Amino acid sequence: MHINSKTMSQPSIPKGTRDFSPEEMAKRNYIFNTIREVFKLYGFRQIETPAMENLSTLLGKYGEEGDKLLFKILNSGDYLKDISDEELSERNVNRLATRLSEKGLRYDLTVPFARYVVMHRNEITFPFRRYQIQPVWRADRPQKGRYREFFQCDADIIGSDSLINEVELIQIIDEVFNRFGIRVCIKLNNRKILSGIAEIIGESDKITDITVAIDKLDKIGLQKVNEELASKGIPQKAIEQLQPIILLQGSNGEKLDTLKTVLKDSDTGIKGVDELGFILNRLKIIGIRSELDLDLTLARGLNYYTGAIIEVKALDVQMGSITGGGRYDNLTGIFGLPGVSGVGFSFGADRIFDVLNQLDLYPKDSIQNTQVLFVNFGEKEETYILPLITKMRQANISTEIYPEQSKMKKQMSYADSNKIPYVAIIGENEMNEGKITLKNMVTGEQDLLSLEECILSISRI
Amino acid sequence: MHINSKTMSQPSIPKGTRDFSPEEMAKRNYIFNTIREVFKLYGFRQIETPAMENLSTLLGKYGEEGDKLLFKILNSGDYLKDISDEELSERNVNRLATRLSEKGLRYDLTVPFARYVVMHRNEITFPFRRYQIQPVWRADRPQKGRYREFFQCDADIIGSDSLINEVELIQIIDEVFNRFGIRVCIKLNNRKILSGIAEIIGESDKITDITVAIDKLDKIGLQKVNEELASKGIPQKAIEQLQPIILLQGSNGEKLDTLKTVLKDSDTGIKGVDELGFILNRLKIIGIRSELDLDLTLARGLNYYTGAIIEVKALDVQMGSITGGGRYDNLTGIFGLPGVSGVGFSFGADRIFDVLNQLDLYPKDSIQNTQVLFVNFGEKEETYILPLITKMRQANISTEIYPEQSKMKKQMSYADSNKIPYVAIIGENEMNEGKITLKNMVTGEQDLLSLEECILSISRI
Repeated sequence: MHINSKTMSQPSIPKGTRDFSPEEMAKRNYIFNTIREVFKLYGFRQIETPAMENLSTLLGKYGEEGDKLLFKILNSGDYLKDISDEELSERNVNRLATRLSEKGLRYDLTVPFARYVVMHRNEITFPFRRYQIQPVWRADRPQKGRYREFFQCDADIIGSDSLINEVELIQIIDEVFNRFGIRVCIKLNNRKILSGIAEIIGESDKITDITVAIDKLDKIGLQKVNEELASKGIPQKAIEQLQPIILLQGSNGEKLDTLKTVLKDSDTGIKGVDELGFILNRLKIIGIRSELDLDLTLARGLNYYTGAIIEVKALDVQMGSITGGGRYDNLTGIFGLPGVSGVGFSFGADRIFDVLNQLDLYPKDSIQNTQVLFVNFGEKEETYILPLITKMRQANISTEIYPEQSKMKKQMSYADSNKIPYVAIIGENEMNEGKITLKNMVTGEQDLLSLEECILSISRI
Repeated sequence: MHINSKTMSQPSIPKGTRDFSPEEMAKRNYIFNTIREVFKLYGFRQIETPAMENLSTLLGKYGEEGDKLLFKILNSGDYLKDISDEELSERNVNRLATRLSEKGLRYDLTVPFARYVVMHRNEITFPFRRYQIQPVWRADRPQKGRYREFFQCDADIIGSDSLINEVELIQIIDEVFNRFGIRVCIKLNNRKILSGIAEIIGESDKITDITVAIDKLDKIGLQKVNEELASKGIPQKAIEQLQPIILLQGSNGEKLDTLKTVLKDSDTGIKGVDELGFILNRLKIIGIRSELDLDLTLARGLNYYTGAIIEVKALDVQMGSITGGGRYDNLTGIFGLPGVSGVGFSFGADRIFDVLNQLDLYPKDSIQNTQVLFVNFGEKEETYILPLITKMRQANISTEIYPEQSKMKKQMSYADSNKIPYVAIIGENEMNEGKITLKNMVTGEQDLLSLEECILSISRI
């Protein structure tokens, strides 16, 4: 690092990005470590991919809007070399972008994962249970809770059609939120059921209109829902057929029974009902703690999900979906490897962070860092203290010595603002007696202890 | 994710970047976790900064060459809007770059840290012990062992001049490499000693020439070293004065004694000797396991280090420096906050990865993932198995069920290639007896066990 002291400026960071302080990092690490432990317990294996991907890998995968939201890297060296004056003066921003840059920042973890699977298919043993926790970047307009850099935590099982995979993913979700202490409702749907509904009413292209309208039942009532469906061009007869679905109620089993009757003429629809039935049955055998709710209005990812659709809502906080996923066919077809089906989901780490904050659910020891600070009175004490500190650390106690021989007040206030629970004080007296005065910063109590007693006291918390 | 199946291509990743497989990730996690644990033990607190920084933060901090190696992000939207036709047709690549982009990727962790300290100075209690483990990006020409994306692991203590900080950092280095099982030599120098040498021979601008020449002593002999010094324009008298320094030998204490004599007329030089003496004395009191070597040829970071210079070499492997750092004054002056001194260092994670590989030092359990795979014979067995798996996981055993009802051979080979040490087999017999056949994949042994016995067997390893 060369410092050129001529350039002087009040620094800032790009909008939509964040610094994470030690306190925030401690909380984030608690979240990521909890998720990671559960992923490992279920046999998922971690991969990482580069932040930069070739634009050819990314472009066209997220729709036209997504292409615009990709952060593109300006080519190194003479990036204008192969660009003619005509091209420049044309000022076609989109076309020129692919000439000025050939790399972009990762937009999600799914496309890089598909690229990874195709590139490494000969090293991978399928089914492949992979997890990935990395930042992604989107040139979205920043707003509250929406950032231009944020982490995704994805788990996918690919190369297997078995519905046991869906069951295991839902177990993972249940386990993770249980460990967090967040009560959640796991909402389930199946793309095949939605397709079946559209099929029996003869309106295959209206799935979204139908789910959007049904979703409003609680707010606007049945009549207005029916009016909205009519306004979307759905014929009266179809709307009549939809009535049992709009009014779908009862337990998940009762809902499935109703659907089985309504969808009896759609093979696809019945397949969807059977799939959901299988998943719910297995989850009952296993026994999970979260609410499970068959929710037909759940229509996320209709562009790519082909079977199960999963979404998680926190019960005790007003917040959008905090986790979501589903089953997709042909993840890797785009990169020349057809026939690889998978199912996966993504934990919304930023929203989970907010939920844990709102409900004040962070365990105390997840946030604490240093356990004891040794006060520094002078050179003689320093020399005496250093070997003691080493022993503390050998006992796995996170220990600091205040590096300066500052006033006692300053050293105590350092311990205070860093939330260090114990301060060890060693002066003339303590050195003579071979003891340590250990001050509990919470209760204010002070005890004259041997090193071993100190270690015991501090380890107890 | 929208898949547009028209775009079909054999995918690749940008040159100089890497994917990390599950095996590589397990090893990297072992490295990062070990480092993180020691950082925590010494009271260091983690921060993270965004991948993208404003170019105004980055430019001019790494020299002219560094500016060229920054990855710049093309502005979003109409990035040509404010650029005139004249500017475009001028094709001034460097100037135009700062018009086309206002953000760049992090080049190291030091400048973002300085920026962080200035922005958050009112929230930070100094001295601030921070660590940071994040990737950085450089548009270097890729070559063996040099990547365009790589991780840095930095620890710094800022806002304190005390040499105890240097002592603690060297202890951390010693502790980390001890945990890795890598024998290292920690080389120490002090910028003030080098300045003192230049001062007493009256050649302040020749420090680098002098250290480069001295470094060749073993290879080319004293006479050629003296010739090289002369060829660099150093007068004969100065070369004579340099002789005791070129031939500096003996223990660190003996070297310090010699330097004290040679540098007696340079206040700066004597200060450097005293600093090094203090550090070596404290480390002797504490007792560390690594070799410590006062090495005057150590001249890394002369542009910014002002006191201690630290570098680590592995003893049993041919490899460049695997860790380095030092004391710097005025880290944050560039961003308008003068007078903040600090000391820090960076572990070279990629090189440590290579050393651990070459010496085969990864602990077995750091690489292993799933501990037991349940074979899947059919629906009836599956239903029977699912609650058992849950119990395994409750006992903190990483467990999978093979999701498909495939041939036994295929399932066993899955366990094999994923290095899963145990396979649990449950068929008709086992279900009748309420037992599990547990196969040890290493020895080939099979035992008929209860669930509890299985858990005990597997937990033992």
